[in-house]
Amino acid sequence: MSKLKVLCYGVSVDGFGAGPNQSMDNPMGIGGMSLHGWFLPTKTFQAMHIVVLGGGETEGTTGIDDDFAAKGFENIGAWIMGRNMFGPMRGAWEDHTWKGWWGDNPPYHTPVYILTHHARPSIEMEGGTTFHFVTDGIEAALKMAKASAKGKNIRLGGGANTIRQYLSSKLVDEMHIALSPTLLGSGESLLRDINLVELGYECVDYVPSEKAMHIVFKQNKKY
Amino acid sequence: MSKLKVLCYGVSVDGFGAGPNQSMDNPMGIGGMSLHGWFLPTKTFQAMHIVVLGGGETEGTTGIDDDFAAKGFENIGAWIMGRNMFGPMRGAWEDHTWKGWWGDNPPYHTPVYILTHHARPSIEMEGGTTFHFVTDGIEAALKMAKASAKGKNIRLGGGANTIRQYLSSKLVDEMHIALSPTLLGSGESLLRDINLVELGYECVDYVPSEKAMHIVFKQNKKY
Repeated sequence: MSKLKVLCYGVSVDGFGAGPNQSMDNPMGIGGMSLHGWFLPTKTFQAMHIVVLGGGETEGTTGIDDDFAAKGFENIGAWIMGRNMFGPMRGAWEDHTWKGWWGDNPPYHTPVYILTHHARPSIEMEGGTTFHFVTDGIEAALKMAKASAKGKNIRLGGGANTIRQYLSSKLVDEMHIALSPTLLGSGESLLRDINLVELGYECVDYVPSEKAMHIVFKQNKKY
Repeated sequence: MSKLKVLCYGVSVDGFGAGPNQSMDNPMGIGGMSLHGWFLPTKTFQAMHIVVLGGGETEGTTGIDDDFAAKGFENIGAWIMGRNMFGPMRGAWEDHTWKGWWGDNPPYHTPVYILTHHARPSIEMEGGTTFHFVTDGIEAALKMAKASAKGKNIRLGGGANTIRQYLSSKLVDEMHIALSPTLLGSGESLLRDINLVELGYECVDYVPSEKAMHIVFKQNKKY
């Protein structure tokens, strides 16, 4: 059965999933790229050739961090993400030229359901990625993603706000976060006012690497 | 020069330094003892013989966790703690029978300045620990602790609320936290609404162990 999974989500020691003031120059907000310190050097990321982030420059590292990075793309049949992960603009779409941060061939290779309040036609990209814009909420997006995924899992990207909505509705089955030894001070909090214990989550795995603390939570359905 | 240091302070992945509902049965709040999973087995803790917490039962472990535990007691000339770390009762002291959680010979062996709104005579314990009750605020306590410490460092215990007050006043020189792979869901948040970046703190060390992620922050005085 399809599960909804947050995977490889970077968080700072002070609990932020992105820094403040996201913009074209700071896709992750100010200081937010430090959350990717464990991910960018990996073989998995380097194989993606996302040039704007420094991909494709080296062979990439293997080991704990790469194992988690690779697992983030295994057996995924659809993605869901918030509109702020898709782009830095807010409000109504000024035009339809923006097609994401990732170039003509984004690293998803599946349907990607983007939560937004502003309708827009789907965009077919190279490599099997299609961006669909969903305006009727998180449950509708999950339903469409499940239909597309055909039994594979669904990966829930960011941003923090999107993950918070799915967590609060107990719809996330599994969440892997990579806690980086970095401070952002402010920005998008992942867990503020969310009581994961009450929502039925527990830590089921902890693997430290030289660059991050990988932690996996699962929802205890017996709760 | 004396520095004010938070050392070995346990925090959950969701940012709590103690669980909810501290009581005689739950000195760290519900679930809070899970924050000590890295500390209790160490040689340093086991040598303390704090029987109520399971000390003195084994030789204790050595390695990363014990190194941090031991550093927490090196070159310390005085302690400061909040009244909620000293005991579970709130409000005015009903009587003067409570002398802390730690038996006749507490593990401090220095003067300990306890912040409270309710005056109480000092208590001289065995082994060099004296509890002093300070009613005129965090700066007064720090001044007294510095006078006692005679150039050694001052360790700031908990709870979270006390540390938050000193952090917000930029009085903490160094903070070592041990992030445990555990969820508390609610309780005493260490960093909520505190912007460590704005206050001039940065991560200067990160050492993962099998049981916790040790992180050290320092205040950048140039800020």
